Amino acid sequence: MILPSWREGRARLAVIEFLERTRDLEVEKRVAVFDNDGTLWCEKPNYIQLDFFVDELRRRTHERPDLADRPEYGAVLRGDVGAMAQLGMERIALALVDLFNGQTPAQFEERAREFITNAIHPDHGVPYARMVYQPMLELLDLLRDRGFSTFIVSGGGAEFLRAVSRSLYGVDPDGVVGSLVAYEFTREKGGPVLHRTSRLYGEVNEGAAKVSNIQAFLGRRPIFAAGNSAGDTEMLEYAAATDGNGLALLVAHDDPEREYSYASEAGTFAEREPILDTAKRLGWTVASMREDWSGVFAGESPRTRP
Amino acid sequence: MILPSWREGRARLAVIEFLERTRDLEVEKRVAVFDNDGTLWCEKPNYIQLDFFVDELRRRTHERPDLADRPEYGAVLRGDVGAMAQLGMERIALALVDLFNGQTPAQFEERAREFITNAIHPDHGVPYARMVYQPMLELLDLLRDRGFSTFIVSGGGAEFLRAVSRSLYGVDPDGVVGSLVAYEFTREKGGPVLHRTSRLYGEVNEGAAKVSNIQAFLGRRPIFAAGNSAGDTEMLEYAAATDGNGLALLVAHDDPEREYSYASEAGTFAEREPILDTAKRLGWTVASMREDWSGVFAGESPRTRP
Repeated sequence: MILPSWREGRARLAVIEFLERTRDLEVEKRVAVFDNDGTLWCEKPNYIQLDFFVDELRRRTHERPDLADRPEYGAVLRGDVGAMAQLGMERIALALVDLFNGQTPAQFEERAREFITNAIHPDHGVPYARMVYQPMLELLDLLRDRGFSTFIVSGGGAEFLRAVSRSLYGVDPDGVVGSLVAYEFTREKGGPVLHRTSRLYGEVNEGAAKVSNIQAFLGRRPIFAAGNSAGDTEMLEYAAATDGNGLALLVAHDDPEREYSYASEAGTFAEREPILDTAKRLGWTVASMREDWSGVFAGESPRTRP
Repeated sequence: MILPSWREGRARLAVIEFLERTRDLEVEKRVAVFDNDGTLWCEKPNYIQLDFFVDELRRRTHERPDLADRPEYGAVLRGDVGAMAQLGMERIALALVDLFNGQTPAQFEERAREFITNAIHPDHGVPYARMVYQPMLELLDLLRDRGFSTFIVSGGGAEFLRAVSRSLYGVDPDGVVGSLVAYEFTREKGGPVLHRTSRLYGEVNEGAAKVSNIQAFLGRRPIFAAGNSAGDTEMLEYAAATDGNGLALLVAHDDPEREYSYASEAGTFAEREPILDTAKRLGWTVASMREDWSGVFAGESPRTRP
């Protein structure tokens, strides 16, 4: 059976109908894009990448306690929400990116892979790598099985995700579009080397930037998009508007028992309305975790949770 | 027989030895990058993209003769090399990019594909699409056959090349890294649309930028690179420096009878030395068109030119 972790219902049916109506489409046009945080893996209580950055900060602080003197680091280490809000998330994020300044892509990738594979999720008590959604893995596989190229288009760091994109999702690193740091090219003894900087390369990959970056990095227009938050709005609209064939799928976090219950409220990047209202207004398909998924996380048996 | 258009010799042998020593390498590490202009297709007497831009300019001038009043366009239309030098190639290139301002990716792609497929090369009298090098097509196929992912990393416009990358080279649009224009996202009646602007997105993809962009766009380090000019130097060095396994292949344009005879002189982007000296100094493999290739262009029979 296809999509074993998807219960009978509107979401599953919409996916199957989408595959029916695109079965004769040229293979070049079979392009599917997925947001990552909250769409392919869990983003609560924190973005996994934020946990990774904070973990790195704590490690570094053991050797260099003076790091806590930097206001951004101090606020994060103390968990001082007020100070963090005052500094602003962008400044804090850039300070955390700065921890990896000078690393080669391979060094960063190794460290990211090690964290995602081994570090333990604070609420669920399993490695972060197990916090991926089984129904979405099945959907990725099914789309590829039907000749689709599958890409990940994330607001998070491209390199963080690339470290595990193949093993977790079957997507090659070149199929990952995300926020990027700029690199510096230098010639060293063994040959040329790239080093990470603390500067961003291009915009943060959210909102309309996701659509521009799909064109810049992939050069193809998606006819399928999956997302879960305001920052995915434009990408979902873009896929849905394709010749009447497109499908926009919104993952709704409405399952406090098995995952979390929260809804994006169209922050910086889209109209100020609850994302489920946006979905209704624009005719997106909503996948309710509670209703539509018989299992949530990979590695669990979907059969045991009917 | 593999590589039928490659004559016995050092270049062919170096490729075969490279395949031998990488045959047990993890498939993830089998990454090959190719420059395009002068490496996969002919770049003389002009870059094909420049001919495309000038063709577009002439068409537009029929309807709007006043376009010739813009200094950059006037110089190009008159073929006034002095005026062009005085204005600078960058200013001229951006003016030509401006011709396509406002187009959607699909419109630009359609026009580029039409030109490359139908317009006739001024010296060779065949469509530009036939100006691709048969030996390099065989090399692309062979590498893919051995599990390599093949990418194109061009100084030219990514979108221009993406229009034909699949049909000419078997490389999907998302496998093409090139210079990019920025897009503008707007919501129109039928849904969201991207429009080209006249601004560049990121740097021109030459020299060290090729290496940074390989990381940014592909997230993988190549162990094979092919190029032909100074702007490929860093990329060739980068691939050659991989664990002793890498291969850097330089296409030498030394065949005035069948193609052209010229050599890049390390312009803006590398040491000021003839590229063949660079190749010698750094131990790159040189493919001489005259010596190593029994046929040059696709669609010719290599057998007829022993």
